[in-house]
Amino acid sequence: MANLLNDRDLQFLLYEFLDTEALLKRPRYADHSRETFDATLDTARQIAEELFAPHNAKGDANEPQFDGERVHLVPETKAAWDAFAQAGFLSAHWDEDEGGLQMPEVVLRSAIAYFKAANVATSTYSFLSIGSANLLRSFGTPEQKARFLAPMGDGRFSGTMALTEPGQGSALGDITTRAELQPDGTYRLFGQKMFISGGDHNLTDNIVHMVLARIKGAPAGVKGISLFLVPKYLVNEDGSMGERNDVTLAGLLHKMGWRNATSTVLSFGERGGAVGTLVGDAGKGLAHMFQMMNEARIGIGMCAAAIAYRAYWMTLEYARERPQGRLPSCKDPLSPQVKLIRHADVRRMLLAQKAYAEGALAMCLYASSLFEDQHTHPDDTVRRNAGLLLDLVTPVVKSWASKYGCASNDLAIQILGGSGYIREYPQEQLYRDQRLNPIHEGAEAIHGIDLLGRKVVMQSGAAYQLFRAALEATLEQGRAVVELAPLTDGFAIPLARLDKVTAQLVQLQASDPDRALANATIYLDAFGRLFAAWIWLKQALAAQRGLAKANEAERAFYHGKLHAARYYCHWELPATLPQFDLLADVEDTPLTMQDAWF
Amino acid sequence: MANLLNDRDLQFLLYEFLDTEALLKRPRYADHSRETFDATLDTARQIAEELFAPHNAKGDANEPQFDGERVHLVPETKAAWDAFAQAGFLSAHWDEDEGGLQMPEVVLRSAIAYFKAANVATSTYSFLSIGSANLLRSFGTPEQKARFLAPMGDGRFSGTMALTEPGQGSALGDITTRAELQPDGTYRLFGQKMFISGGDHNLTDNIVHMVLARIKGAPAGVKGISLFLVPKYLVNEDGSMGERNDVTLAGLLHKMGWRNATSTVLSFGERGGAVGTLVGDAGKGLAHMFQMMNEARIGIGMCAAAIAYRAYWMTLEYARERPQGRLPSCKDPLSPQVKLIRHADVRRMLLAQKAYAEGALAMCLYASSLFEDQHTHPDDTVRRNAGLLLDLVTPVVKSWASKYGCASNDLAIQILGGSGYIREYPQEQLYRDQRLNPIHEGAEAIHGIDLLGRKVVMQSGAAYQLFRAALEATLEQGRAVVELAPLTDGFAIPLARLDKVTAQLVQLQASDPDRALANATIYLDAFGRLFAAWIWLKQALAAQRGLAKANEAERAFYHGKLHAARYYCHWELPATLPQFDLLADVEDTPLTMQDAWF
Repeated sequence: MANLLNDRDLQFLLYEFLDTEALLKRPRYADHSRETFDATLDTARQIAEELFAPHNAKGDANEPQFDGERVHLVPETKAAWDAFAQAGFLSAHWDEDEGGLQMPEVVLRSAIAYFKAANVATSTYSFLSIGSANLLRSFGTPEQKARFLAPMGDGRFSGTMALTEPGQGSALGDITTRAELQPDGTYRLFGQKMFISGGDHNLTDNIVHMVLARIKGAPAGVKGISLFLVPKYLVNEDGSMGERNDVTLAGLLHKMGWRNATSTVLSFGERGGAVGTLVGDAGKGLAHMFQMMNEARIGIGMCAAAIAYRAYWMTLEYARERPQGRLPSCKDPLSPQVKLIRHADVRRMLLAQKAYAEGALAMCLYASSLFEDQHTHPDDTVRRNAGLLLDLVTPVVKSWASKYGCASNDLAIQILGGSGYIREYPQEQLYRDQRLNPIHEGAEAIHGIDLLGRKVVMQSGAAYQLFRAALEATLEQGRAVVELAPLTDGFAIPLARLDKVTAQLVQLQASDPDRALANATIYLDAFGRLFAAWIWLKQALAAQRGLAKANEAERAFYHGKLHAARYYCHWELPATLPQFDLLADVEDTPLTMQDAWF
Repeated sequence: MANLLNDRDLQFLLYEFLDTEALLKRPRYADHSRETFDATLDTARQIAEELFAPHNAKGDANEPQFDGERVHLVPETKAAWDAFAQAGFLSAHWDEDEGGLQMPEVVLRSAIAYFKAANVATSTYSFLSIGSANLLRSFGTPEQKARFLAPMGDGRFSGTMALTEPGQGSALGDITTRAELQPDGTYRLFGQKMFISGGDHNLTDNIVHMVLARIKGAPAGVKGISLFLVPKYLVNEDGSMGERNDVTLAGLLHKMGWRNATSTVLSFGERGGAVGTLVGDAGKGLAHMFQMMNEARIGIGMCAAAIAYRAYWMTLEYARERPQGRLPSCKDPLSPQVKLIRHADVRRMLLAQKAYAEGALAMCLYASSLFEDQHTHPDDTVRRNAGLLLDLVTPVVKSWASKYGCASNDLAIQILGGSGYIREYPQEQLYRDQRLNPIHEGAEAIHGIDLLGRKVVMQSGAAYQLFRAALEATLEQGRAVVELAPLTDGFAIPLARLDKVTAQLVQLQASDPDRALANATIYLDAFGRLFAAWIWLKQALAAQRGLAKANEAERAFYHGKLHAARYYCHWELPATLPQFDLLADVEDTPLTMQDAWF
């Protein structure tokens, strides 16, 4: 089997690109060591290889079936879920007094990347379960926690996030599911939710839906939205299972990929109302949910990185083995065919795959290290700044990883040619799986407006300034290394243009927000390319440090990093320049296009 | 049902963008009129709507099945094939004395675009059949024609092109299927072919395979390749069906999309040798086949245009109907949601879809008009020049249409969001179908090397010079129209850079072909963008002419063309500049990347 990820690269990212060992000095992680971190990664890789990867294609070819009563998944899904839960991954990041292992997020997420690479669909159930349990940990009442947290931590219950409705997509303010307060303090929910991943299945005794709904009489828009816990089965005070709740599966949706993860339409309250309890404050449901959504956005970036990564390794293996034609300089038809990897254009595509897959993984782990610092760094200012930076880069990480993840899997198909297009090879499924990532947890346009309309503006641009300062610091380090000068040189013009265009568009937002934000998706992409180039420069710096003391095999690894960084800075970073032209011109062809002209 | 294509646009492209009516002056088309052209388009649209479109999803969900003896397709496929054949589309372009209607290619291909938009998989059988019959018409012996041509023209027989083998993909010189001459002048073929579309099915009485093979003792490489006609069933001299030939279906391949078109592995000669007859000259098989391949490449461009076009119309309909959120300037949650199309970023994506789909259709029809001129123009020089230009633009048309066809269908998914990703909406299938086009009939890298290594070089750059002269002529016309000045201005720098980079890389080919061609795929893309911008400028000129005498509905159509041209020239053409930088630097990061560093 081709690698799921690259163990060496994960080591590099955690301990050379990031300084994950420094976490051991924090009191929360005093009982950990580099050995416990690495053992966590090993366990994850092993379970992913043995219980997730083998049914990836089978789950794709045999979609979940609903017989009118129950949903059936290929049985390997349950074995995978159980192994994941039994290894403690559902609660490894929890506090010890919650029953967790206080595992740093950045380590846990690295471990979970193996499951995503092995079988993103099957990994979805745990991904959503971890997120909804986190919501409960942050905002649940002691009673809610007492009933639901332990079984969500050990895998008896799973969780979902139920936001979207049939009549509303990205605009969450428009949801219509309503909640009616009962004399006993509980609510009854009525409405329909759509595209709810893991909304029904046969993996667990119960499913805990975290549902956005509007309390009767609440104001319109986002301020009227509250968060509710609505279990599939009610749970009695003693923890025993109660009645079936009034949440029913209206139907399964049939996705292009990611098929072993059910995508459901759920009906609440067709028989009198689904029993729910309020989580957190009334009217703050969306704010609470954003905790989960922001984590999920980095998580989607990680899915994109993992799918791209797995395809990259498979493609590389193919390109090294498959004979194909000759180089342009060879005119002798009797000479043997060369391997695919000898063709310059194939190497270009492989380099792009490497730049996208490893770049996406690196940026997701960087974001996870910010999350880590935001929550566990001893210094107040560092915590605050990490939070600000994370807020800024979340839409960028999610969107860049998803967009270029798709580009990467597209190249994987292209390198295999006809073989890439048939289901006899795994690239085909990975390409379909990857296509979901630019859609869920907010389509690209949403993130563009979030970045330009909110994140670079917030606190008078404080987050943007932190980002720029961090980038300048890396550039300064880079300029001190003679081999990296050709990389650092390429940043000057794009950065100056980013600063100027940002100031210009922030100013324009005050007078004409529609015009200022019309090209926000382009801004997001240009920002993303600069961010990715920075991530690659940081990797190049770490690689240059490593090279000094490396043996031959290690040298090849570091040269690969340096060459991929060079590829990104030479081939991809300059593509921002025409984008900055469009942004600076506030180019209005789309804005002025009339409906009747299409 | 949403439009398959846009009738108005086809009229515009044939009679305003191109001057198809001028063909009526050629003796070959004396019996035709604009009415017979338009009637052909109407018939095609009607059959496509009634017999091709309705089973597009069904054929995708119910792939061809092989029971060990026969291949079964959804039965609607046969009805579609029969209607297509009965309407005369298999032979409409043939001479009258061959039994054809002498329909101009440019009209026929426009008509066939409807079938491709309706159901590209089902249209494949006729697409390949037309191509193989054309080969037979050009290179077949009178006896071969007498036995096979009539039934291929009326739909009793179908045809395939059998090039690829399991051990050889793009490098056709390496095929190993061998042909042994028999005392009676026929050959026996032995070998295996792979990815043969339409290689087996239950639509026709017989299947005529046009097979590349190597005559025993022939030299290595392309010069040893000959073309053979190998029917599934032998045909007796009187035209009656003879024995089953020794060609067997080794298996079906399972494609991502395009599923109702069988993709087969065929075994020749497992029971003593498949009977074949030589078509054309021994050793010239590849040269003969290139006639079909070049036609097929424009045909694949047309498939890409058609799939993108259909998705565009469906997306447009969705974007006009689906309510979604509010504009950034609206802060009132009580205001009604706006339609998706009101969002600037959605209009940007729709404009890109329009620019890609209509642009691809326009460039394919332009190429078809060159084919037309090459074969039927009364003037020798015009014929010769049309042939040269067609040779030059064939790799560009095929690759640009396929690449941006994929981009267009990707945007169609993105605009629909979650709904775009599920099989409950047709965009999902169209996205999968489209992905084949950048692969078959030569992957992108092949076309890059063809363009830069052969086409711009041939006859001392004669074709390139013709292309540049044609472009300059359009620019001069554009500069004379004040409204088009902002479009024409954008060409100056990219064109100057194209000229310079072309001269530089042509020169480098003499001394270092591997280096000169290393970035040929980038050259192809930059060339394609310039070519597409030119096609859009030509459309803008025609639209500007039409606008002068248009009523209101017509004005909207022309404004749409002008705005799409503006979009393309402002948003897409400048993206060539960083590409020209890479080309001018002969940037060598991919070339110098070492295998061990990946």
